[in-house]
Amino acid sequence: MKGHQPIENLIYELSRLPGIGRKSAQRLTYYLLDQDLEDVESLAKALVRAKRDTKKCSVCSNYSDQDPCEICASPRRDRNILCVVEHPKDVVTMEKTGKFHGLYHVLHGVIAPQRGVGPMELTIPELLNRLGENDIDEVILATNPTRDGQTTALYLATLIQPMGIKCSRISHGIPVGGDMEYYDTLTVGTALENRVEMK
Amino acid sequence: MKGHQPIENLIYELSRLPGIGRKSAQRLTYYLLDQDLEDVESLAKALVRAKRDTKKCSVCSNYSDQDPCEICASPRRDRNILCVVEHPKDVVTMEKTGKFHGLYHVLHGVIAPQRGVGPMELTIPELLNRLGENDIDEVILATNPTRDGQTTALYLATLIQPMGIKCSRISHGIPVGGDMEYYDTLTVGTALENRVEMK
Repeated sequence: MKGHQPIENLIYELSRLPGIGRKSAQRLTYYLLDQDLEDVESLAKALVRAKRDTKKCSVCSNYSDQDPCEICASPRRDRNILCVVEHPKDVVTMEKTGKFHGLYHVLHGVIAPQRGVGPMELTIPELLNRLGENDIDEVILATNPTRDGQTTALYLATLIQPMGIKCSRISHGIPVGGDMEYYDTLTVGTALENRVEMK
Repeated sequence: MKGHQPIENLIYELSRLPGIGRKSAQRLTYYLLDQDLEDVESLAKALVRAKRDTKKCSVCSNYSDQDPCEICASPRRDRNILCVVEHPKDVVTMEKTGKFHGLYHVLHGVIAPQRGVGPMELTIPELLNRLGENDIDEVILATNPTRDGQTTALYLATLIQPMGIKCSRISHGIPVGGDMEYYDTLTVGTALENRVEMK
């Protein structure tokens, strides 16, 4: 339908986003058509600006509009401890806890041979350089407890431990406030294996 | 956090959209940062273009990039029957059925005194003009079966019927393929009241 082309085109563009099906895309499109042009332009500008002004930090590969990023540049961070995460959004999650004061290293993925992702496709060479050139006491491996995340953590540990650097893994088990009943046997089994002695 | 400003700004802009909470907005933002600049620009352009190139049809008030819209301009539509809907997206829904071949009239809302929306805030004056100037046999009132949608349909019927024009209302009841068990008593009660004799 030629007459609906700009509308159809926006529905198509929005439906390509993760978690947005055709129906949500249509609802969003008609919502936006009901808004003022300035509001829609403001969203469009925010999109382009976020992408254009955001670079990967040359130290940790986190997304930032400054290089080095504000965490790497901060004099208040402990420079002897590194937390390795899969993705920039994991940095946000870690920062929210307020419990980590070291630096990060963002892999931008996990090793996934079935999808052709090897160590060279990730920032693993950069991580090893960083560990070689800086005085790092501990590396916390905070990849996700998925198969690929576990594989990646194990792979990194076998590279890092021989460098005389302590490697740790974030713990996995029943989420705090969670009910055992609702978690799968793998999670409950892990929680059992990783039990901590009460003192 | 000044360093994250373009990212934070995009999360904020996206979280203002309906059905997109802060968490989804963050997930979308980081997804977009992982994409190529051209893809993000393509989405931004689609947003502005849809809004800028879409106008309200001067006849039926549906959104279109031509005026009159392609439905009003089509020689294949039955010009003696009008379907009144709340919103342009309802036109899409009706068109999908393939069972309506007349013209539309889009109200752009419903009468809602509690929100200060009266008949003059909708395209009701335009509807009455259309009915006065054209040879219309029937008006189908297809506002939603909500309180305000019902009130609006009743209000329109009291204006239109005295003009000697047949007024009908789309039927309400158990959705086709639905199970009675899952619908509220109001829906089931309506389905009972609106029962149709089997022949």
